Amino acid sequence: MNKNTKEYFMSEAIRLAKGNVLSGNGGPFGAVIVLNNEIISTGVNEVTSSNDPTAHAEVVAIRNACKKLNSFQLDDCEIYSSCEPCPMCLGAIYWARPKKLYFACTKADAAHIGFDDSFIYEEISSHFDKRTIPSENIFRTEGLEAFKAWEIKEDKIEY
Amino acid sequence: MNKNTKEYFMSEAIRLAKGNVLSGNGGPFGAVIVLNNEIISTGVNEVTSSNDPTAHAEVVAIRNACKKLNSFQLDDCEIYSSCEPCPMCLGAIYWARPKKLYFACTKADAAHIGFDDSFIYEEISSHFDKRTIPSENIFRTEGLEAFKAWEIKEDKIEY
Repeated sequence: MNKNTKEYFMSEAIRLAKGNVLSGNGGPFGAVIVLNNEIISTGVNEVTSSNDPTAHAEVVAIRNACKKLNSFQLDDCEIYSSCEPCPMCLGAIYWARPKKLYFACTKADAAHIGFDDSFIYEEISSHFDKRTIPSENIFRTEGLEAFKAWEIKEDKIEY
Repeated sequence: MNKNTKEYFMSEAIRLAKGNVLSGNGGPFGAVIVLNNEIISTGVNEVTSSNDPTAHAEVVAIRNACKKLNSFQLDDCEIYSSCEPCPMCLGAIYWARPKKLYFACTKADAAHIGFDDSFIYEEISSHFDKRTIPSENIFRTEGLEAFKAWEIKEDKIEY
């Protein structure tokens, strides 16, 4: 397979996903990040092996790519994920701002093998007081003091 | 202030948020995680200082709490965040499954000082082919092989 094709990069993400199942490292998910036709980082699901519920393949790959680039932005990068990202990973992707996302399995495929994130999509679209994890808004006035400190700070690094 | 109150725990999250601005470590956000009336972990926004776009206060606090508990679940824990969580952090919260979320500033307050995540909420609710980061579904058949490997694995750790 030609190494500079989207099919090649996706086959690498899928190869990582399969390997992650066989090694017992975590769920069947892998991701690679590509810049200028080169893989600059990879990630696999490490939730159970690292006791980190945020260690989804995409999040791990984003962290690794940012570390390599010394940047909190993935301008001009492409993310290849073996599965359609969950809302957490999508959020991470929007904050990292790559230029394109490719995915192989769909979220329906993931739900079919027990990884159903549709309830998270629904929860996120709901108002906070309608969510299944009870949410309460307290101490807003006190919280705003931190925001005021940010507003008046002159040497802040925006992101 | 009584140390076993929600107001005390939130004041700690807000104190961390303010300190994070003054130290120049990152954005004006802090979080603490409480189990049995004790703070078991804290987190501040470290996006710019650690070049990690996923290092929001809630995600950092969740990672730290899970490390401390040697678990990828935060059963019976409460999360106190100085600001209403963004979709990425909400996703992380749903995967970690704490019992309650408290927040101080609202997402409207955050948007007012330049942290507007409303576009991410909209993007996540859209179908993938309508999103501003172009998304393409390729190699689904090949991807499903990783899922099949997971389905037939007998000693897998589900999460």
